[in-house]
Amino acid sequence: MSATGKFDAEIAPLLLNLKSETELIPAIAQDFVSKEVLMLAWMNREALQLTAETGIATYWSRSRNEIWVKGATSGHAQEVQELKFDCDSDAVLLLVKQIGVACHSGERSCFHNAIDLKEKP
Amino acid sequence: MSATGKFDAEIAPLLLNLKSETELIPAIAQDFVSKEVLMLAWMNREALQLTAETGIATYWSRSRNEIWVKGATSGHAQEVQELKFDCDSDAVLLLVKQIGVACHSGERSCFHNAIDLKEKP
Repeated sequence: MSATGKFDAEIAPLLLNLKSETELIPAIAQDFVSKEVLMLAWMNREALQLTAETGIATYWSRSRNEIWVKGATSGHAQEVQELKFDCDSDAVLLLVKQIGVACHSGERSCFHNAIDLKEKP
Repeated sequence: MSATGKFDAEIAPLLLNLKSETELIPAIAQDFVSKEVLMLAWMNREALQLTAETGIATYWSRSRNEIWVKGATSGHAQEVQELKFDCDSDAVLLLVKQIGVACHSGERSCFHNAIDLKEKP
């Protein structure tokens, strides 16, 4: 099945719950091998379609208000192996091969501010 | 440090970017051991504070518009081992011990609608 066909056949039917073409859903990028959660970004219908068609994680930048091909300027692209929608189809998990690092800070994952809740008193 | 002290000292300073007490941020629950991503839900400041104080994942239910102690009715609670905020402190990752299953459908993870982007034609 072509990439466009895959979007039409497998992804578009999951998006019927979205209120609009521009509604954003959270997208979690997880390392395909290590299972580390790398970042959380946002996708609209167009971003999902581009991701499905190109295989490169493509988000909606809320700060720049435009489509954001992750790695287009930094080189730190994400090759998407698998997409997983949740039970309500209002969040998506991307299993990716991360080129370089995910975070603009230079850390591999954006989630690097850890607070241990099991710390002994 | 007490749980309340931990919220005041370590979490509250990260929340200064939030526009209001009621602003919601996405919260990813990940299995502490297997690293499986279990679900995505939403937290406001109160949910974060309750999670830090009780050690039990507590979200804001957007459908019921109220605080939601995960597992309070199902028994499928999440014992939080660690919280990780992302670089902008507008998303949070919870590393949890999942009692039972995360999804109301009975699946262990809510992310069970998989679309393989590396499928051979």
